[in-house]
Amino acid sequence: MARIGIIGSEGAMGQALAGVIDASDHEWAGGIDRGGDAASLADASDVLVDFSSPQALDANLHAAIGAGIPLVIGTTGLEERHHGAIDDAARAVAVLQTGNTSLGVTLLAHLVREAAARLGPDWDIEILEMHHRRKVDAPSGTALLLGEAAAAGRGIALGDHAVRGRDGCTGAREEGTIGFAALRGGTVAGEHSVILAGSEERITLSHSAENRAIFARGAVRAAEWMIGRAPGRYAMDQVLGI
Amino acid sequence: MARIGIIGSEGAMGQALAGVIDASDHEWAGGIDRGGDAASLADASDVLVDFSSPQALDANLHAAIGAGIPLVIGTTGLEERHHGAIDDAARAVAVLQTGNTSLGVTLLAHLVREAAARLGPDWDIEILEMHHRRKVDAPSGTALLLGEAAAAGRGIALGDHAVRGRDGCTGAREEGTIGFAALRGGTVAGEHSVILAGSEERITLSHSAENRAIFARGAVRAAEWMIGRAPGRYAMDQVLGI
Amino acid sequence: MARIGIIGSEGAMGQALAGVIDASDHEWAGGIDRGGDAASLADASDVLVDFSSPQALDANLHAAIGAGIPLVIGTTGLEERHHGAIDDAARAVAVLQTGNTSLGVTLLAHLVREAAARLGPDWDIEILEMHHRRKVDAPSGTALLLGEAAAAGRGIALGDHAVRGRDGCTGAREEGTIGFAALRGGTVAGEHSVILAGSEERITLSHSAENRAIFARGAVRAAEWMIGRAPGRYAMDQVLGI
Amino acid sequence: MARIGIIGSEGAMGQALAGVIDASDHEWAGGIDRGGDAASLADASDVLVDFSSPQALDANLHAAIGAGIPLVIGTTGLEERHHGAIDDAARAVAVLQTGNTSLGVTLLAHLVREAAARLGPDWDIEILEMHHRRKVDAPSGTALLLGEAAAAGRGIALGDHAVRGRDGCTGAREEGTIGFAALRGGTVAGEHSVILAGSEERITLSHSAENRAIFARGAVRAAEWMIGRAPGRYAMDQVLGI
Repeated sequence: MARIGIIGSEGAMGQALAGVIDASDHEWAGGIDRGGDAASLADASDVLVDFSSPQALDANLHAAIGAGIPLVIGTTGLEERHHGAIDDAARAVAVLQTGNTSLGVTLLAHLVREAAARLGPDWDIEILEMHHRRKVDAPSGTALLLGEAAAAGRGIALGDHAVRGRDGCTGAREEGTIGFAALRGGTVAGEHSVILAGSEERITLSHSAENRAIFARGAVRAAEWMIGRAPGRYAMDQVLGI
Repeated sequence: MARIGIIGSEGAMGQALAGVIDASDHEWAGGIDRGGDAASLADASDVLVDFSSPQALDANLHAAIGAGIPLVIGTTGLEERHHGAIDDAARAVAVLQTGNTSLGVTLLAHLVREAAARLGPDWDIEILEMHHRRKVDAPSGTALLLGEAAAAGRGIALGDHAVRGRDGCTGAREEGTIGFAALRGGTVAGEHSVILAGSEERITLSHSAENRAIFARGAVRAAEWMIGRAPGRYAMDQVLGI
Repeated sequence: MARIGIIGSEGAMGQALAGVIDASDHEWAGGIDRGGDAASLADASDVLVDFSSPQALDANLHAAIGAGIPLVIGTTGLEERHHGAIDDAARAVAVLQTGNTSLGVTLLAHLVREAAARLGPDWDIEILEMHHRRKVDAPSGTALLLGEAAAAGRGIALGDHAVRGRDGCTGAREEGTIGFAALRGGTVAGEHSVILAGSEERITLSHSAENRAIFARGAVRAAEWMIGRAPGRYAMDQVLGI
Repeated sequence: MARIGIIGSEGAMGQALAGVIDASDHEWAGGIDRGGDAASLADASDVLVDFSSPQALDANLHAAIGAGIPLVIGTTGLEERHHGAIDDAARAVAVLQTGNTSLGVTLLAHLVREAAARLGPDWDIEILEMHHRRKVDAPSGTALLLGEAAAAGRGIALGDHAVRGRDGCTGAREEGTIGFAALRGGTVAGEHSVILAGSEERITLSHSAENRAIFARGAVRAAEWMIGRAPGRYAMDQVLGI
């Protein structure tokens, strides 16, 4: 049983985290949002989970170091200098930073990389995602993350091989490309499929999210896993033992 | 048992038709290709199936009228004047013209129209297709045919509501649009899904072809059904009793 | 805007209904549960929605007749005598009774019947469903409802043709049967697919529920549609205009 | 370019192999069936592929040893004594024996084992397969192979945890079980899905075969890979570099 402190407690993820902690064996050590005192929260916690904003990052890292406790960072929009600050902090405490805290997506990305590495370039890779009608960009960040995993498995750069928004007279598919397609509609929380299509056979690796609680659940599992870790920078893969 | 004559016998569909007739109770009355004599073929047949080219259409209609037998036309690329010629011929003999002879696709289009008509515009419609890596255009003709069926069910024009090749900062989905997405890879013969996504529920109507024999099979069933019909213009729907 | 009264307001469906009405243009006229006074609720309502128990049915029908308002019944476990009582009440007021208030499932059943009616017995019908790990029976009631729709389309009795729980040395598939398969796991709210498998092509008609709110939403739409209807017994199909 | 000799050349797999070799850079060194002389065939070959019968195994192993060439065995129905004979032969030459020569299925099994090993027992595992209407047993051998991979990943024995043919009042799903469901219909060559269903998220790993050529293709790739290998017993995983 751990005392988990939440930074960004008023946001959608902060509230989802409170619900997940409530239903777990752990204890909600408290939450802060814009302008809250991270140092006091850290003193009352065994581990911090941060879904706030890049602006708050320095204060949050400082608080974790001050209290000598690990920190899980799910904040998005981090830039290079933020990653530098995280690397610095990771010399003093354990820090796990990730763009996606879902265990399922983390595992899927690992399987996609593995599959892409084992199958030759004569297996065409396509990535399909579906999200609710309010989503304003395409493809999703998770689709791109899966594309990066596929490209890494093949030892290529995604940027040079991505084909997006196929439409019209496209010509035959070019070998080695990675295609993306996006569906939008209804209230779909998020579905992703990576299709590896070979000659007369196909492998499809998919993830389906029922709602955003899974991101909170994964963050709590990461928090548990971080308690007692040596200083250093960690990734979600490691929580799954990959 | 009917004697079926094939026009365009050397093409991929002509050969597939020969195989299907061979495995059926029917008899292959003969086949002609570029420059063959349609009139002689018609005299030896109970029904003609034409998968040749628009250029040969007039001669083929003429041959059917001369022999007084029905004609099934699966030729693609027909223009308005070809349809006029078909309408004229249909005053003398029974003519069925269609862009897709698969029974499954014909039924799916009917179900899509029905579903779109019953569900309000708060159900978002998306059409997804996957084909082999050699296909050079997107979306497929069948995907567009399904889009037309959805639009007809809603009483709107597809041209004004189609969203194709979604990519980048698209903004939220606009109500009433019909989205298209295309996947390419491997040797997939053809898969189509029409997704109707409402609030917290989704209906998906799909068709999957294992190979192009289904188009030949559907054409043969149409040919059977046409024997003994009164002069007039017929469609695939009617073969299914719709 | 209608005043909707809820009978069975403390149950899962009663609570889901309150949420849906709250988010709609309609007004929650009040709710009663075990022992509540249906007559007073009816006087304050334009329409009643009943998700209580068979035991309460007589009092609920009586209240609707007394107030001269329509009644939507989603209560399960009704027996023949309950249906008799509903028929009697339907001479005085409009009553809609259904085993499934989801619009999507209602439409899917209609499409399944239509597909089964159009395709010959050489198209094999299989029904697949997946539900959460806590579900104690298989196949689901909705899977059976879809099986009934398929059997009705074919003009056969489901009882004589159902094949359930296929395992071991089954022998080749018998023509004309309708197969059922059930998956259980996780927290899946409910997914159903009806597969029609022909020679080298397949049609799949699916419904996916994200949660049980869709049943409440469908019940509210049915309630709206019922206001002002002549006395008589109605079904969900009619709400969809089928 | 290799000379590939086929044992069991008249069977369905033998014929599919001939087609695949014909379309490859390799050379068909000859084929034998019931009663043919394996020793002469071996002398004319760089590698042998055996899809014959257990009865012919000893002669085939003997021929490979005599010619000092590797042997790929895809014959089914092998018993313990056959495996003993293979182990003996593998001291003299390279022998690869497998129950499934598809590269896609081999990779899928590897991914399933990996996924099952990483996810806790609170992720429910279900295995679904669909095959044509003539298949006489359920679940398929490949479904069981995937179940074995899942069980191996979890460190449990499949036999103690398999739940097959779920039907009727099953009670809630028992944690740690692996469920199987089988669909039959049409001419489906073979589709398999392994579903890992957690709390509010799901991973699905699928393989779809368009026809049996993929098994021939995988056998030819295995044959290529075996040329020049040291004596020993090999498995399909290794061909993929796993």
